Parts: sequence; structure tokens; C-alpha cells
Amino acid sequence: MTKKISLLGATGSIGIQTLDIIGSNPDKFKLVSFSAGLNIDSVREIASAYHPQMISVIRCEDAEMLKTEFPAIEFVYGDDGLVEVAARTGADILLNAVIGSVGLKPTLEAIRAGITIAIANKETLVAAGEIVMSEARKYGVPILPVDSEHSALFQALNGEDPKRISRLILTASGGSFRDLTRAELANVTLEQALAHPNWSMGNKLTIDSATMLNKGLEVIEAHHLFAMPYEKIDCLLHKESIIHSMIEFEDTSVMAQLGSPDMRVPIQYALTYPDRIPMQNAKPLRLEEIGMLHFEKMDLVRFKALGLAYAAGKEGGTMPAAMNAANEVAVALFMNGRIPFVQIEDIIERVMEAHRTILTPSLEAILETDSLTRKMVYAMVE
Amino acid sequence: MTKKISLLGATGSIGIQTLDIIGSNPDKFKLVSFSAGLNIDSVREIASAYHPQMISVIRCEDAEMLKTEFPAIEFVYGDDGLVEVAARTGADILLNAVIGSVGLKPTLEAIRAGITIAIANKETLVAAGEIVMSEARKYGVPILPVDSEHSALFQALNGEDPKRISRLILTASGGSFRDLTRAELANVTLEQALAHPNWSMGNKLTIDSATMLNKGLEVIEAHHLFAMPYEKIDCLLHKESIIHSMIEFEDTSVMAQLGSPDMRVPIQYALTYPDRIPMQNAKPLRLEEIGMLHFEKMDLVRFKALGLAYAAGKEGGTMPAAMNAANEVAVALFMNGRIPFVQIEDIIERVMEAHRTILTPSLEAILETDSLTRKMVYAMVE
Repeated sequence: MTKKISLLGATGSIGIQTLDIIGSNPDKFKLVSFSAGLNIDSVREIASAYHPQMISVIRCEDAEMLKTEFPAIEFVYGDDGLVEVAARTGADILLNAVIGSVGLKPTLEAIRAGITIAIANKETLVAAGEIVMSEARKYGVPILPVDSEHSALFQALNGEDPKRISRLILTASGGSFRDLTRAELANVTLEQALAHPNWSMGNKLTIDSATMLNKGLEVIEAHHLFAMPYEKIDCLLHKESIIHSMIEFEDTSVMAQLGSPDMRVPIQYALTYPDRIPMQNAKPLRLEEIGMLHFEKMDLVRFKALGLAYAAGKEGGTMPAAMNAANEVAVALFMNGRIPFVQIEDIIERVMEAHRTILTPSLEAILETDSLTRKMVYAMVE
Repeated sequence: MTKKISLLGATGSIGIQTLDIIGSNPDKFKLVSFSAGLNIDSVREIASAYHPQMISVIRCEDAEMLKTEFPAIEFVYGDDGLVEVAARTGADILLNAVIGSVGLKPTLEAIRAGITIAIANKETLVAAGEIVMSEARKYGVPILPVDSEHSALFQALNGEDPKRISRLILTASGGSFRDLTRAELANVTLEQALAHPNWSMGNKLTIDSATMLNKGLEVIEAHHLFAMPYEKIDCLLHKESIIHSMIEFEDTSVMAQLGSPDMRVPIQYALTYPDRIPMQNAKPLRLEEIGMLHFEKMDLVRFKALGLAYAAGKEGGTMPAAMNAANEVAVALFMNGRIPFVQIEDIIERVMEAHRTILTPSLEAILETDSLTRKMVYAMVE
């Protein structure tokens, strides 16, 4: 009963933790393929430790070089390589942990190959949630969430009738700047933005948490994963990140999933679902040691980017793809020191104002929106 | 698809709230029979409003009198009447909300008649949990919890594999005296004991909450309902009573059920399970308004009665029945002003020290333990 795993984004934060789980449970999981970027030393280490049958890297020359070092492994590269790794190695589960909309095509190809999707790549659902979910229904493929919030919702929905949901409640730590006013945001540095209070995550995700756009992406993701209208998706500030999210049902019962902040728990749950297995080296939750949990109303004026994301989601069509692409470029510009922090949400807002939404777009229209938006943002800051 | 409901203890706190739910959903529920005690005016009101086919009261003369007033209804009385109401009116569900071990026999007879049990009468499971659960398995009858804590555990277990449970975590408000030291307990009054901070409950249950023996009864109840060893059942002080209880699984995920303190929610869930229906006039949970939830380690020295209950549960056999009977009498004596508050746990302790446990008792041995213990406690205080 070993499950064959294909992993996109093996050297990122989620990827490394996924490898930890696979390595700790060799009787349950086998890594059959993975993708990585430019960190070739890590690729060598993972290849030696896990002996997959296929690996994709970004550059052709890296693939050529690695072929001579690992003759038993097939090496591919680029966007086509991602699709090969995702859909052509007979995996039972594709864990998609790449960052950004680059994860979209391999996800769709894996769905068409009948492979269960464990999705950590939220931009895929944000940009093309309707197409992805509709293909998943067509091919009878489960889409399992890996984000801690969506995994919490998914677990809270176990054994329940989705028709009885009255509200999804996504919790939000508030990110690195939760205690700052809007005025105080003007002079924050990259270093400050990268200091997330609870979660150890990749840089892009940490910046998205600081702007709260991340919670907005999660709202759109939840809309697609759980087929829930935006009016029934709320966000709640909860600075300890212990309650990972909640579902309120029609009888006012609220079901919640709690735990110490440890991304391996939702990753492992996606891999073992519908079963659970013991978590190696985990820190069980002890609420008596934590003592207090805090909750606060989400403020869409203070966290402007979240309000923009709700608006993009409600508009639908190509608008979420435009918003997401604007954010990806803006975050990259902030990380490169080209723009100040507050300009991230200004860029998103200007892109959304300028974007002319196509309401039921093809995949090509979504990808074109993504590409044109990126060019537009670079042009804005030149 | 109307469910026929038989209700034991219709005029008590749980009974009244059950009638509220039945009355609010006449398309879903029909009250076919109920029992009450000495409050004959309430019996008249319920009879007029719900038109059941059978009613049981305590006294023969009340039954005779009511027969002339309600010729269409069959009236029965006493312990036999309880069994008639529980098992002989073709109900789909027996909601057992009587107080004390008097609920045991009608529960067993209803199980043998194939009637689903919704159990609010925790003393039945405490005194004879093994017999009740074994009969329920034999007749394929579900035992659905009505206590808010056990309903929370039951809901948290939805869609999960019970084998993956690592810990049940029962939350406890701490009761009326949670902030007093043991020394300060010496002079507390009945009035103070009856002022529960969160829940509106019957008097016996409110006193049991103040001693924390109630949580001990719930631990034993959980042991039987979820077939869980005592080592895997923990109690956690949580003064707001918002998280009603939790299950920790092997992967460290904790599933919890939350809500405003409103007993109608678990009552209704037991009646609608596995479905949910909207709750009339309910107060949805708004954690942003509550702001903070507090958690504290349970102190078995401060809450001595809880430690006694764990010991009784672990000993098993007739010991929990002895402990429960001692408590029932001691609480009655305290409510009549015959003994001070702290003597409740002293009486329980002395009874447990004196009791010689029969390890796999018959129902008769349990009932005899119950009866002898009551006599013994009355003798103690004379």
C-alpha cells in the first residue's frame, strides 16, 4: 500500500517538509519524481536519498550535467519538465508546492492523468480555480488542501454534509506587521517583513502574510475548494495560529481543527487521507501551557489587500489572475528593494482598476492575463 | 420522515429544551410519550400542546386523575411507567433526561426494543456503562450523547477512525467555585453553589459541577461511549465553556466543537444525527466578541472529587455505581441543608474506601450496590 508521490517544488519550505514525511515513512510513501529550481546541490542530495525515477530542473544545462551523475534517473527541464514530473511518472498523488501560477499547467495535466492533487500552490486555484475544479470533477480526481487553513476546513468537514455549512471562518495570525497602524507601515523593511511571528514559511508567503494578501488568496482558494460563496467566508484575527480554521454549521455548531503551528501536519494529512498516521518528532498541542487564545475582528481598512482580494474573487473571471500576477511581481520588486512595502497593495489596486475582466475565460485567457499583468507592473515601476 | 420521540424527564432542564426543539420542528419530530415527576401542571401543559399517546408520572393517584382529564392518552406511573414510556410506544429515539440511576432500567428496555438512545442521563452510563454498551452492541442500537462535552467528542469523531485517537480532552468550566481555594470551600452556601457561571442547568448538575464530580461522571461516561482507557481521557479547565471538548489524533491534529453555551444544540444534534438542521433563536458564536479563551491545567488536589471519579472508573465493576449513589445522596443532603458542601466529597471518599468491588457485576449487583450505598450514606449522617 505504498503511495507513489510526485513533488513539485522539492527544495522549498513545503517541499523539504514533505520529503521529511516521506523519508520518515518509507513503508507508506515512495518519491517517484520531483522538481526543483536552481539549487542543484539540494537536487543531488534528494536524488541520492530518495532514488526517484524522474527529476525536473529549470535549466537545460543543469539537466544535462545531472544525467551524467545519476544515470539511473531521467532528467527533464523547464515548464515541460514540470508537466512530465507531475503527470508522467505514474504517481498516486501530486503534491504541488511550487510558488506562483507556474504550477497551473502541471496540475491540470496531472488531473487529466487521474492523479490525486495535494495542493499547496494556492496561486493555481486563485488564477484558475473554476477550470481546475471543473476538470477535477470531470476526471473524478480529489483536490486535497495542504495549506493549514484549508486542511483545517477539510478536516472539520469530515463526515458532514457541505449543504449544512453556514460559514467558513479562516483564521489569520496577522503576519509580521499585525500590531502596526497603516501609517507605521510606510517605513518597514524587508527584514522586518520576513520575521513571521508563528510560521516558518517561504519568503513570498511571509510577505503575503504581512500584506494579508495571503489570507485573500486563501479566501479565493476556499471559495473554489469548498464551492462556497464569498458571503459565507469570513476571516478572523487569531494571533496564536492555534485554531487553524473553523466551519460553522446551520445548527450553530462550530467545528475546528487545532494544533501547534507545524506545516508537516497538514502535509501529512493530505498524503495519508482519509487515514491518519503518527507524526514523527511532533510537538503535541498543550492548551494549558499556551494559556490564552486571542480573537479579533478582521479590519479590511487596516488590511486593505484582503479587501482587494475579496473584491477580485467576487468579480471572478480573469480578475483574480490579474490580482495574483500583480502581487507576485510587486512582492518580487519589494524583495529586490525596488519598491516600499505599502506599494505592493497600491500596485494590486491599480492593476485591478485597469483590468478589464473576461468573465468565463479559457485557460489561455487566464495565462495571457497573467503574462500581460506582469509586464504592466514592471512598466509601472520603471 | 418524522422521528417519533420518547422523552424521560420532560419537566427538567433538558426535558424543557427538548420540547422546545420538538415544538419548533413539528415536521421533523413527534412526541409520542414522556415521563415527568410531581409537577402535574406541567404535565397538563405538555399533554395539551404535544398530544402524546402515553405519559408516565411518579404517583398512581396522579395518573388516575389525569386519565379523566385526557381520555385519549394512556397514563402509567412509577418505575414500571418509565419502562412503558421508554420502550412500549414505538419511538424511534428515547431521549433519556432523568436524573440519577433511575434511568438505567428504561434505557436497557428501550435498547432491547431496538430504540436509538439519546442519553443525557449520565448516571446510567456511570453505574452500568459496560452492560448498557454491551446490550447496545448486541441489539445494534446507537447510543447518542446529549451532554455538551460528549456531543462535542462525538461530532469531532465524525468521519474519523476511532483507532487514531490519542486523547480525549474534556473541557471544564470549573463550576461555581472555580476561583476558591479548598480552605475557602468550607463555608460556601447552597445559593452560591447554584450560581453556575456559564450554563443554565438543573440543580443536581450544578452542584456536581461545583464539586467537579460532574466532570468525573463525564470521564466515566466518555470511557464507555468511546471505548477509551482512562489514561487517554484528560480534563482541561476552560472557564468560558466555548470549546465544548476536543479529540487529539495520532498525527497531533486536534478536532474540537465550539459554540455558545446552549444545551439545545447538542440535544438537537442527537435528534437530527447524522444530519443537522438550523437552530431556532440561537446565538451564533462570535469569537471576535468573546476576545479571549482561557485554558488551565486541571488540579486533582483542588478538585478532589474528580480524582475520586478517575479512581472509581479505573477500579471499575460496582465501584462507579457506589461512587455515584454516594454522590446522589450527598448532594440531596447538601441541598436540604443537612451537610456542608465539602462533606459531599468526604462522603464519596468514605463510601469508596468501604465499598468492596464486584468486578464483573450483574445488573442486579449494580442496583443492589446503588441501594445499599444510599442506605449507608443516610446512616453516616444520622
